[in-house]
Amino acid sequence: MSKNLLDDFENYLLENLPQSKSFHPIFEDALQEMLKAGGKRFRPMLLLSIVNANQSLLLKNAMPVALGVELLHTYSLIHDDLPAMDNASLRRGYPTLHKTYDEVTAILVGDALNTHSFNLIANAPLSSDTKIELIKLLSSDGGIDGMIIGQAIDCYFENYKLELKQLEFLHIHKTAKLIACSLKMGAVIAGLDLKTQDRLYAFGIDIGLLFQIQDDIIDETATEEEAGKTTNNDMNKNSFINLIGLDESIRSANILAYKCEKMMNAFDENIKNNLIPVLSKYLYRHK
Amino acid sequence: MSKNLLDDFENYLLENLPQSKSFHPIFEDALQEMLKAGGKRFRPMLLLSIVNANQSLLLKNAMPVALGVELLHTYSLIHDDLPAMDNASLRRGYPTLHKTYDEVTAILVGDALNTHSFNLIANAPLSSDTKIELIKLLSSDGGIDGMIIGQAIDCYFENYKLELKQLEFLHIHKTAKLIACSLKMGAVIAGLDLKTQDRLYAFGIDIGLLFQIQDDIIDETATEEEAGKTTNNDMNKNSFINLIGLDESIRSANILAYKCEKMMNAFDENIKNNLIPVLSKYLYRHK
Repeated sequence: MSKNLLDDFENYLLENLPQSKSFHPIFEDALQEMLKAGGKRFRPMLLLSIVNANQSLLLKNAMPVALGVELLHTYSLIHDDLPAMDNASLRRGYPTLHKTYDEVTAILVGDALNTHSFNLIANAPLSSDTKIELIKLLSSDGGIDGMIIGQAIDCYFENYKLELKQLEFLHIHKTAKLIACSLKMGAVIAGLDLKTQDRLYAFGIDIGLLFQIQDDIIDETATEEEAGKTTNNDMNKNSFINLIGLDESIRSANILAYKCEKMMNAFDENIKNNLIPVLSKYLYRHK
Repeated sequence: MSKNLLDDFENYLLENLPQSKSFHPIFEDALQEMLKAGGKRFRPMLLLSIVNANQSLLLKNAMPVALGVELLHTYSLIHDDLPAMDNASLRRGYPTLHKTYDEVTAILVGDALNTHSFNLIANAPLSSDTKIELIKLLSSDGGIDGMIIGQAIDCYFENYKLELKQLEFLHIHKTAKLIACSLKMGAVIAGLDLKTQDRLYAFGIDIGLLFQIQDDIIDETATEEEAGKTTNNDMNKNSFINLIGLDESIRSANILAYKCEKMMNAFDENIKNNLIPVLSKYLYRHK
């Protein structure tokens, strides 16, 4: 089921790429490039899985919202890769935007995708009340109190060792909140009760942390070719590897994976069965 | 009246500055700095003037929307000033953010203000239908088909002389659309009919172009101290001055000011009387 859902999302994405008609010779290409480059589509798949579990008839109407979340995430990758930040040259298996084009283009494409994510949600075929709720969530968890303060802390405290609590704050904000938000947005579209929304959100925070530790482990152990992005780039970064070491990171990942699996199994069958295909590859245990 | 409206807005802004609670030592300061630095508040004043002309009781509810527009405009200034773009060192009479702090901070503060503008609108005490309409407008005219493609063209065609039609396209998108949008958003909040909304939008496009020509003239003739920002920085930019010369720019500004005045006088008395205090300083004739 998830396979089809992913195909459906990919097709929707390709048919609904943001456009920019003008005499600018490369802006539209640049705008679409990182979206077409692929990626795991993890956040939109989480959102769509929850909708699919409860209101599969609404899946079509949820597509623009799922795409909005992917746009917001993609803009954050483009800006994170900039020379002033991670100065990465590879992303989703392709050269980063500022490498293919230039910094101006990468900054402006990021800005455009950020703004356009809200345009997509505002134009989705859902009720205004639902859409306002979704915009509140995405602009909060994807904004100052979420993703952005996480990234700001990540950059500011490079070369300065954070405490474990601070590192968790960093990753909860930089990564986990948008993941939790994606689940909750799916729940809002599906009209689930507040308690289930909150449980999905809390589950998403743990999944997000797990996701980040797994990512740190991959960054430490995979080649660029395997990861499709610049790796071993985190020497001075506050990663779990640098703070607690590879072995302890693997141990933490395994414990968290166990906890997440338990939380997932406590959701009703429909939700669980829809989440498994999206999450199974993150719930593995390292040896 | 406009004097009070501006004071009201300034007070609202100071009491509702975006906040960021974390152990990051400077992010909140940086987030607020350019907003506190002042500026003409031209776009929020246009929006509030239209609300005030028709539904003054709604002024209070329109404040977060006006602040949202100012945030979006401010983010665009912060990103435009970046080294990769205009590389400006002065803005609103203060050092630009990347000068006071660094590029990372300036990029992330811009990103945060962009996203937060939609958060403010989504949380405004207005109906969901109205707010969705406002978000559609701001995310369109402030996004790919508006401000951003304008800025992208401005940067891409530096050192390359555009035709007059292309220069107008640039400025309509980079500057005029957000100004026109501000007027239309005021009209949406006030519940004005579609025809009046469209007339205000068309008027805003002309005001925006006029505003840009006046700005080019100031940039050519004022010192940095007078302008409060980096001036004479446009040698290779596609400005009206560089394309048609100072004399012809002044002549165009005077013709456009005359046209705008006529358009303004054709609005009903309430609208006209509310717009005059905001616009009068842009409608002057050069000698």
